[in-house]
Amino acid sequence: MRFEGGTSVTLRVEMDKQKVTFAELVSVIGQQGGDIVAIDVIRPGRKTEIRDLSVSVVEPAIVDSLAKAVQEMNGIHLVNVSDRTFLMHLGGKIQIQSKQPIKNRDDLSRVYTPGVAKVCLAIRDDINKAHSLTIRRNTVAVVSDGTAVLGLGDIGPHAAMPVMEGKAMLFKEMAGVDAFPICLDTKDTEEIIAIVKAIAPTFGGINLEDISSPRCFEIERRLQEALDIPVFHDDQHGTAVVLLAGLINALKIVGKSMSDIKVVVCGIGAAGIACSRMLLSAGVTHLVGVDKEGAIHKDEKYENEVWNEYAAITNPRNEKGSLSEVIRGADVFIGLSRPKLLSSENVRTMNADPIVFAMANPDPEITPEEAGSYVRVYATGRSDYPNQLNNVLVFPGIFRGALDARASTISESMKLAAAKAIASIVTDEELNEEYIIPSVFNDKVVPAVRKAVIQEAIHSGVARKVPGDFRNLD
Amino acid sequence: MRFEGGTSVTLRVEMDKQKVTFAELVSVIGQQGGDIVAIDVIRPGRKTEIRDLSVSVVEPAIVDSLAKAVQEMNGIHLVNVSDRTFLMHLGGKIQIQSKQPIKNRDDLSRVYTPGVAKVCLAIRDDINKAHSLTIRRNTVAVVSDGTAVLGLGDIGPHAAMPVMEGKAMLFKEMAGVDAFPICLDTKDTEEIIAIVKAIAPTFGGINLEDISSPRCFEIERRLQEALDIPVFHDDQHGTAVVLLAGLINALKIVGKSMSDIKVVVCGIGAAGIACSRMLLSAGVTHLVGVDKEGAIHKDEKYENEVWNEYAAITNPRNEKGSLSEVIRGADVFIGLSRPKLLSSENVRTMNADPIVFAMANPDPEITPEEAGSYVRVYATGRSDYPNQLNNVLVFPGIFRGALDARASTISESMKLAAAKAIASIVTDEELNEEYIIPSVFNDKVVPAVRKAVIQEAIHSGVARKVPGDFRNLD
Repeated sequence: MRFEGGTSVTLRVEMDKQKVTFAELVSVIGQQGGDIVAIDVIRPGRKTEIRDLSVSVVEPAIVDSLAKAVQEMNGIHLVNVSDRTFLMHLGGKIQIQSKQPIKNRDDLSRVYTPGVAKVCLAIRDDINKAHSLTIRRNTVAVVSDGTAVLGLGDIGPHAAMPVMEGKAMLFKEMAGVDAFPICLDTKDTEEIIAIVKAIAPTFGGINLEDISSPRCFEIERRLQEALDIPVFHDDQHGTAVVLLAGLINALKIVGKSMSDIKVVVCGIGAAGIACSRMLLSAGVTHLVGVDKEGAIHKDEKYENEVWNEYAAITNPRNEKGSLSEVIRGADVFIGLSRPKLLSSENVRTMNADPIVFAMANPDPEITPEEAGSYVRVYATGRSDYPNQLNNVLVFPGIFRGALDARASTISESMKLAAAKAIASIVTDEELNEEYIIPSVFNDKVVPAVRKAVIQEAIHSGVARKVPGDFRNLD
Repeated sequence: MRFEGGTSVTLRVEMDKQKVTFAELVSVIGQQGGDIVAIDVIRPGRKTEIRDLSVSVVEPAIVDSLAKAVQEMNGIHLVNVSDRTFLMHLGGKIQIQSKQPIKNRDDLSRVYTPGVAKVCLAIRDDINKAHSLTIRRNTVAVVSDGTAVLGLGDIGPHAAMPVMEGKAMLFKEMAGVDAFPICLDTKDTEEIIAIVKAIAPTFGGINLEDISSPRCFEIERRLQEALDIPVFHDDQHGTAVVLLAGLINALKIVGKSMSDIKVVVCGIGAAGIACSRMLLSAGVTHLVGVDKEGAIHKDEKYENEVWNEYAAITNPRNEKGSLSEVIRGADVFIGLSRPKLLSSENVRTMNADPIVFAMANPDPEITPEEAGSYVRVYATGRSDYPNQLNNVLVFPGIFRGALDARASTISESMKLAAAKAIASIVTDEELNEEYIIPSVFNDKVVPAVRKAVIQEAIHSGVARKVPGDFRNLD
């Protein structure tokens, strides 16, 4: 039993009161390093009693020995040990709520038959009214097939649900977007496309999540072609936007510009490709992608067709060789690959003031300790180091803006605008090597991203509605 | 503009204060029969001002003339007229809510990465844990293709959404079940089956809704075979259960038993077939189905294959002819067909103490006025007559019980148990010709249905969990 990140567990114990006292139990738990913070009597009784004990432990590793010691006590049956993370998941993390109660027949006749009929007919006669008269106005599907979940890989649709529910929570808590998880029991590209097209009438946007490469590219592209609501693969674009936001600010610190730098992107999967495209859109010209076979270049014919497309738009000097070779003279390293791929020797060969974004999950391509004094600006995806590049900064505000503008798509220029908006939250006074990106709990982020996305949606003509607060602006 | 069932409208008016006073506006509205019950200033201003006026009208028909009179006033621009039903639908009727807030990094690390990973892995290792660690435990999909919505027919998936949202509200408000609408942009049987199978990992049950006959039969049957969660086509089984509940009580009034009566079911579509099957399960033997071609019997080969199957199990005396002919001597008429199919002459040829359940929507097969004194017990699907046989009495409690028992299906015996439970709410003292069925707002209904469904699920072995409140019962 492992309790990573857990600091509180609940023990359900059945006590034979003739054999053991509660004081004895408290004593054993204390000796094992546990601290009882709450007690709930689940089933009282004269002879035996069931209680839930919430026990705080400083070190998760001691839970096993604590449980063992309790279990071995005479008169105690340890029914169950639950840690707080599991308890927070019991029954799932989201629920459906009616916006208004149905208290009487009058309410019922408005929200259901017979009153609802005229609302249905209004939509039948003008399908655009679905955006105002149904949940479509504010609802996004979080769609996954469970094939590339976190760093866990292909764990299947049932096991992917807790991540998608967590995402739905973040959508709501951060940006007021109603998001609902749809985990699909199929990995077939055609079937996934057909399903998402078919369920689209319920939703105002589609957030694709944790779908493995290369299927994710075709799924996203064909869905966006087929649907008139935004389709956004967060693993690609959320990551790309937050990396660009970080890079905009990191370049301010080192005083370099997008058009002058050499960027090495390591790990040319879904996120690596999206990130590269975004950097090119933002003005980077000298960008080299590296994967298992070394630098991706135009002289090679790759089995992976997306790499051939990638070679066509990157690596203008047609550089070849391993990461150690192409990293020489680079200004920026962006890792979306595997832990420990980048050595401190590699970093020493980079240009002055190197910028390293080491995003591998759960351990970065190079630790901050190893990067040490060679790296000028260092960022990761982790919350326990400075400069966390987390796409939680991106998707809530992007969809908030897209829904409010009833955008038909989330264009490259809207993503660029979102990245600039996130970067702009850090003021020139605040900006430093350890603060290039705002916290995910910074409440300026979502409004700023929303505003930038709406302005760009209106400007580029993908907005189908001008939100109330934009009607008097230019 | 029609405002069926609407008694309150909201007028958004832009007033030029130099040309008109608010008192003049109030006066005109009053002259037209309107009563201002609330005022919201939407955009204040010195010269012009926008206000929303909630106006109560006794007679919906006067809204048009009232709006016209307001519009014609000098200095008034009538921006919009909304009735309350439409206002209640703005932005949809349900929303997603997080069960707990994400206030800080500690919360985030439990409900999302990195803590969520161990919950995902627990489900990957034991897929049954999805029922306790995800929303599956309490969540039902309300799936429709929009082909047979209310009495409106094939209005499409977008226009069907308000009904499915209303259903989701009822699930939550009546029984605490989280239900989410999924409206499908396809009518293809195979595609619908594939889609529902694929999205099933998110849900603990599937409520099929408003899918036209005969596709609904195959869709339901094949989905129930493929999935280990309940699949329930409410238009069939919800209706069948509530009709049986009503019939159980109506027979008590007339002192007849299921095995002795002759029942004529008029309208052999999805609901008619399900209702007939349920009555046969409940002990009825003499049952004749009638549709456009008259009584359905074994000597005919029908194009509609389900009618051939129907003929094989009904009409034991092989009766032929029109409704007028087979209704003679019947004890019970059950109409699931079209308005005004049954005449008072027909009713006069029925056996003594005739029971008529006239469920056609929106107008019954025979009005209560016409049925008059000939009919002993009369019921409809409408709320404005006594004895409303409404499937809102059925689906919330059935799914509440099925989810709590983690039932793999909703069997015929569970439906029978639900019908008996609903009937039992009306006590012998209360029972009379005008009160055979409890109100949809009777709060005894859901607990009684839940209990009966769980007991039967446990008894018949489809329960995969014994709810806490059943553990000490036999």
